[in-house]
Order: sequence, then C-alpha cells, then structure tokens
Amino acid sequence: MIFSNLIINKNEPIYIQIETHIKQGIKSGELKKDSKLPSTREVSKFLNISRNSVISAYEELESRGIIVTKRGIGTFISIESEHERYEYNVDFIERVNNYGNTLRELDITKSELPYKKGMISFKSISPESHLFNLDDFKRSLLDAWTFEEANLLNYGYAKGYKPLIAYFFDYMKEKRVTTANKDILITNGFTEAFDIIISSLTTKGDVILCEEPTHNTALKIMKAYGLQVVQVKMDKEGLDLNSLEDALDKYNPKFGYLIPSYNNPTGIVTKTERRKEIYKLFRKYSVPIIEDGFNEELLYSSSPIDPIASLCGNGNGVIYIGSLSKILFPGLRIGWIFGDEKLIDVLESVKRGRNIHSSFLDQSAFCYYLKSGAFSRYVKNVRKYYRDKYNLVIDMIHKYIPYEYITGEGGLHVFIKLTDNIDARELLDLCYKDNVIFMPGDIFYENKLKGTDTFRIGFGRVSDEDIKNGIKIIGDNIKRLVKNQNT
Amino acid sequence: MIFSNLIINKNEPIYIQIETHIKQGIKSGELKKDSKLPSTREVSKFLNISRNSVISAYEELESRGIIVTKRGIGTFISIESEHERYEYNVDFIERVNNYGNTLRELDITKSELPYKKGMISFKSISPESHLFNLDDFKRSLLDAWTFEEANLLNYGYAKGYKPLIAYFFDYMKEKRVTTANKDILITNGFTEAFDIIISSLTTKGDVILCEEPTHNTALKIMKAYGLQVVQVKMDKEGLDLNSLEDALDKYNPKFGYLIPSYNNPTGIVTKTERRKEIYKLFRKYSVPIIEDGFNEELLYSSSPIDPIASLCGNGNGVIYIGSLSKILFPGLRIGWIFGDEKLIDVLESVKRGRNIHSSFLDQSAFCYYLKSGAFSRYVKNVRKYYRDKYNLVIDMIHKYIPYEYITGEGGLHVFIKLTDNIDARELLDLCYKDNVIFMPGDIFYENKLKGTDTFRIGFGRVSDEDIKNGIKIIGDNIKRLVKNQNT
Repeated sequence: MIFSNLIINKNEPIYIQIETHIKQGIKSGELKKDSKLPSTREVSKFLNISRNSVISAYEELESRGIIVTKRGIGTFISIESEHERYEYNVDFIERVNNYGNTLRELDITKSELPYKKGMISFKSISPESHLFNLDDFKRSLLDAWTFEEANLLNYGYAKGYKPLIAYFFDYMKEKRVTTANKDILITNGFTEAFDIIISSLTTKGDVILCEEPTHNTALKIMKAYGLQVVQVKMDKEGLDLNSLEDALDKYNPKFGYLIPSYNNPTGIVTKTERRKEIYKLFRKYSVPIIEDGFNEELLYSSSPIDPIASLCGNGNGVIYIGSLSKILFPGLRIGWIFGDEKLIDVLESVKRGRNIHSSFLDQSAFCYYLKSGAFSRYVKNVRKYYRDKYNLVIDMIHKYIPYEYITGEGGLHVFIKLTDNIDARELLDLCYKDNVIFMPGDIFYENKLKGTDTFRIGFGRVSDEDIKNGIKIIGDNIKRLVKNQNT
Repeated sequence: MIFSNLIINKNEPIYIQIETHIKQGIKSGELKKDSKLPSTREVSKFLNISRNSVISAYEELESRGIIVTKRGIGTFISIESEHERYEYNVDFIERVNNYGNTLRELDITKSELPYKKGMISFKSISPESHLFNLDDFKRSLLDAWTFEEANLLNYGYAKGYKPLIAYFFDYMKEKRVTTANKDILITNGFTEAFDIIISSLTTKGDVILCEEPTHNTALKIMKAYGLQVVQVKMDKEGLDLNSLEDALDKYNPKFGYLIPSYNNPTGIVTKTERRKEIYKLFRKYSVPIIEDGFNEELLYSSSPIDPIASLCGNGNGVIYIGSLSKILFPGLRIGWIFGDEKLIDVLESVKRGRNIHSSFLDQSAFCYYLKSGAFSRYVKNVRKYYRDKYNLVIDMIHKYIPYEYITGEGGLHVFIKLTDNIDARELLDLCYKDNVIFMPGDIFYENKLKGTDTFRIGFGRVSDEDIKNGIKIIGDNIKRLVKNQNT
C-alpha cells in the first residue's frame, strides 16, 4: 500500500498531503506508469480521514494529467517517473545586442554601491511613505473595485483609463495648457513615457539636447538607442541661453529634453522668464521640446510657474511628460504623455505593441484617489514637511561641507559641487564605510570626466536626526580627503 | 464686489464654487493681477456661508499660486488673466521612425473592422468574464493590501513581486521543468515579455523561425524591429519536421518562436512526441526556442503534455514565456519570462529601463489569488465550460460551413480553411452587414497572399445562442459568395 508510510500532519490541508505523497511516489519510482492506485474509499478507511479529502486530491491530480480514472476499472498513474531530457546550451550573453548591453551597463541598481539596512541614505529622491495616507488610498481602491469590478480584470484601452485621462486633461488646463488638438496617453510612469517617445521618434545618431547635468534614466535610455546626447550648461537659473543657442545652431538636434522644475540632479527651478527665453530659442530652430514635469506639484511661490507646454498654445511644439508618482506612490507606475493628438495616436499603437496597456487596477484606484480630494490635502501637507527638511539640509551643509556651490530650492534633493577637486566617488567610498550613502554626480553627465566633484543629496526619506549625523559624517570625510591632498 | 453675481447651488461643495468663481473672474479680466480680494470674513458674511468654506477655497487657490496672502495686508490675485503664448508646430508624423510606423500600421485595433454593440463577435479569444469569481479576487486584493500596504505604493523590484516569482517557480516545477540556473522576470503580460526578449537579443535583419500561421502580435513586434520572419508550415499535429529542418539549415535563424499548445490561430496542440522531435531539431542546429505557453492550463488529456522547456533539463536552450492572463484576468497584464539566469539578469535591466517594474498591486493581488487555491477551482470550472462551447462550435461548423479543414481541439478558438477559394475578407464584409464578426486569417501570415481563405473563430465569450445564429449567418454568406462565383 503506497500510503502505509504516510503520516498525516495537522498543519496542511489533508488533500494536499495526499497529493504530495503520490507525486513523491512517482518521483521515487515507487509508483510506475499505469500502476493502479487504491480507491478513494480504501484510502479514506486506511488513513482514517474523510473520503472527500481523498477525492479532492485525486481530482486535482487528474486535472493535472498525473493520474487517470477509468470508470469501473480504477485509477492509474499516467506519467513516467523519469522525464527524458536533452540539454543544450546557448551563450545568451554573447547574443545580447547594444540596446540590452547599454541598459545592463548603465543600470545603476547593479553598478552603484548598494544601500544596506541601517545606513543613512541620501541616495533616493523618493517620497517619504510614512506621509502616504493609506486609509484614503484603501478607500479609493475599494471605490474603484466597487464601481468597475470585472472591467478592471478585462482588457482595457491602450490609451488608458478614460476617467483618469479626463482628470489629467483638467489637470493640464489648470496649468494653463491649451488642450485643443492634444491628446493623452497613460504610461507606466515617466520612464515608459520617455522610452516610448524616444523609441518612436528618433534614429540612431540623432542628437538630443538636454541640461547638464540631467536625469540619469533619461541619459541611459537615450544611449541605449544610440543617440548622441549633447548637454548644455546651466547657471543657477536654468539653461544658459547663449550655450543653448550655440548648440541649437551647431547640432540640428531632433529634440530638447528639459526638466524645468527641480531639475534632477541640481534641483534648479527655472523661472517663468527664463522658461520663455528657452522656449523661444527652441521655437526659432523648430526643435520640439520634451518637457519632464518632474515634481512640479511641489512648486510653491507667490506667482505660479507654468510648464513650458503652456507657452505653446494651439501649437504642438512641446510634448509634456507628467508623473505624480514622483511625489506620491512611486510603486503605482502611472505617468502620462500630453501632446499633439496625431502623435499620441501613433504612440498609443506603440504602447499597445509594448504591453497592451498599463494596469487598470492601478489607474482606477489612483483616479478615485485623485478625485476624492485626497491628493490636494496630501500635497499641502508634504510641501511643508519637505520644506522643513530642505531648510535643515541646507543648514547642515553650510555647517559641515566646504562647497563651491549648492543648487536646489526645495523639492526632494539638493546638489553640491565641492571645493578642492574632491572626488565624490572617493568620498562615497569613505562615507560608505561609515554607513552613509549618496548619489555621485558623474552619473548625470554624458561626459564621464565631468561632475566628478559633485553629488546629490536626496532627503525626502531621511529623518532629521539622520540628516544631522549623515551630513556631519560626509563633512568629516571631506576633511580627511583634503588633509590627504595636502600631505 | 466680485461675489455679487455668485449664486451658491446645493450640488457642489461650496469651497469649490468659490474657487471656480474666482478663476472665472481672472479669466474674464474682472480680477486683474495684484487686485485685492475681500477677506474671508467679508465673503462669508456677504454670501451667508461658513467662513471655513471660504478659507478652504482661498487656501486651495493659494497653494496653486493663483492668489497670495500678505499677512496684515490682504489677499491678492497673483496671476495675469492673459497668458502669453507663442505657437509653433512640428510635423511629428513625418518624424515617426520605422519602428513606430510599423506598430501603427499593424495595429489591428485600428485597421480591422471594429466590433459594434449588439454584434455577434467571434473576433476575440479572451476568456468569458462572467466566469471570473469576483469575490475571490476582491478577497485576494484585500489580503494583498492588508499584508503589504505601503509596500505596494513604493518602488518595487524590476524582477517582480518576490512571492509571485516563487509561485511561478513552483508552477514551472509542476510542469517538470528544471529550475537550476534559471530565473524569472515578471512582465506586463506576454506582449512585454516577447518585446523585451526580441529587443534585447536580435538585430535588424535577423531571421526568426515560427509556425505558419502564428500570433499576429508576435509578427507585429518582429516586423517592428526589422526582423525577417520565416514561417514554417504545419500539419494537423504541429510544425512539419522536414520543412523545419530545411528552414533551420537554410536560414541560420536567431530564434524559433513556437506556440505548441493551442497555437494561435490554428488551435493545434502539438503532442509530446512531436514536441520532442521539434526540440531535437532546434538543438541540432543550436538555435534557442522562445516557447509561448499560451493557454497551456486548458490542456486536458489522459497524459500530460509538458512544455518544450521541460525537455531542456539543466540546459538553457528554451526561453519560456508564461501568462495565465490569457484564460484569467487579461486586464491584469501579468506574464513572466523563465530562462537562463544570466540572461534574466540582462532582461531585468532592460525591464527597468523600460518602465522600472510592473504594478505591484496587480502582482500582489494576483499572487494571493493564486495561492488561495481559487485559480485551481476556476480552471476546473472553465475547462468544462469551454469544452462544451467548443463542441457546439464544431457541430455548427459541420452543419453550416463548407471547410477544407478545421483545426483546434478545445482552447478558446478554432481555425477554418474554406473550400472554393472563398476570400475571408469578402466574407467578413458580408457578415459585418449582418452583425457578425470574426478574425480574418491573413493577419497571421507574414506573406499577405497566404491565408486569404482562412479565418479564426474565437468562442470564449459567445453565448450558445449566438454561436448557433452566428455560424449559420457565416454559412449563409458563404453560400452567397459561392453562388456569385458560379454565375
């Protein structure tokens, strides 16, 4: 009897124990193909368990094709214990193309020093999740489910969840953007939005102008597609206008990619007048702008700073990428592309070819959350919270770090250029031993010889205590490096 | 007084009415920049409403930078009614590259006749959503939320939700696949899985071998990347072995792409012996296989049919793409790539470069659903349901449609080759007028001259009544076409 060595335990459903036992019997060779199993009645009697458990186990095994019941004859094992295998191996790594290799090489999650538990980390520019109002979100999730139910489990639209698209249209109008002849495509966050635009509208060798320094993910994507990235220098107010015009004139770029609010990594907010001048230069050379609306919601001043897209009126020269998830729920991966409606029609087909559509569960829950007013309340709270952190960070930097300049005026990060040609990676190595980590600045430069004496401090998730201690530790290590230089 | 023409209604929160009123005042020019607003106390008295509503409205407007409060002085409009605009236009359509154009041209959602409400549609091969157990899913969603909470709203891992990866590992083991030196990447469904593999491992001009006919989305993606698709003819048991060996020998292909279970569109299930022969040929020529595990869960026979990946043992020659969402919750967009661990490491970086990661809310809810046992129960139910539908479809086709052959043995679709060189698109045009729609077969062929007398009948979502009426209507229209041919 195959079951004579089975001892039923109390921790697992009985039918699963029976299933497992039979599978092991096959694996060990004890139960050969076509051998007969005892009937469910016999097993239940033998093991003194309910017959239903045995029936469930047999049904489950039968549905997987492992046993077969022949009416009036009995139940039989229907598979071989040995499974024939014929191995062969391929060197996939050798087959990876430039695109794959570039994304692998520039994947900072794999190349940069990893965060370890207990460290003070200034590496991330993600929002503090303790501020998320989880009850509000849970309510929105349930509202979404109640209202949509099976709709969320069926195929949706490549363009996105319609009520969310409508919400983002209103959101763009609030920012005084003209919406005539425009359309919106919902994407899996900024990254997918940028990737879809770049993959559809550029060809290897094309030049893209962007700020120096700029978002490393954007740099990575552009390089993966073989584009030539030309970075234009910035002053403390944003792109330097003379350098921009020179570059526009010299390179005949396909696009400009700009982060006018809280540029990543510098944190520089380009003000309205400079935005206009920048925009007018791109317009003069008929070069479209991809505007990254990164962290725009944190902007807070006596006069609003509208996105560059608002300058375009009925024109189509600016493609705007929005993503609220940089300050809220980064895990939801929701962003959007706002631009010329004919262009969005093409990008919608690209999105469909990439992954059919973004999660409708995410989109719907997020939409209910936004509409409930929870987002406005949240933004009001976090502005004050991050403003206080920012002020503390600046105070500590003044106190401990010898800088050539600091940039950033709020947001979730600041950028530091050190004096004395201190190498930020040497500094990072020292700090890492002291359990402090930050983002070295060179990853934001196309030219790897640049930005070596710079680094980014992200503070959204760092406690006040850690900000104080962490920046002091960085300062102490700078002193050690300076001392070494002088000896 | 700006509020003298405001009449408060009862349908909308009062603070929103006040906000809207002020914004309209700015837009109309009535409220100019720097003009002073009445105090919140004055407004509440004047309109006879709670002062809190006025305060809320002012706070909201201030947070958006539309008004500014100067302590002890008053509240002022801080924006211009007119917003300067400088239009310019770019011809984006002219700038779309081959990749974008191909995905747009081959987007059947846009090129094929659209479904209209009330039609009998055999077009879709999606599952019937009435069969979804929504209560089970809701419970899983809540379990996921309760257990994970803020984790689902923070950045997750590019590779996927760890418990779900563990689940899919077990799932592969159940199918007798060896998991040593293998890894799993979670993707947004099959489409993204295939796209990530193709985009990372092929170069323009590479040859991919696949079945003739094959999945149109796969064809679309391969063509978008400029690959040369070589389709190998099938008999009723799967790929024709002689043709396969000829093609392997002649073309030196980069990959084979195979759908061994319920091939889309033919519905042919390749049995174990043929699978082995096919596998051995690819192995002989050291060509890796991308195996599409499409609808495998519907397989039901006295002996199990293991995936081709199970033949590989510790070898890495097969990359398996899984997706339960073809029979369950297509809207959740969850699939996975199972393959060589070094390869998965690269593809993980590609996934991160594409969209950081798939929705963790989807992944977690789905994982709880799978683990609850709800999926096994569901599969048991739907197998019977679809089997009955399949039998009805076959009966009706025998009765009404003059075919050269029908293929498909269960699953969610069958494929018909007509006699008399009937053009399936002419047939579709006629049926469309009678409110019946199906998928013309030519979209599954690389060579557009092929498959013109074939079409696919998807029946998962069609009621028995509609199956009877719909197939009769198709049959009637075939008669008309045959009659026309003979006159």
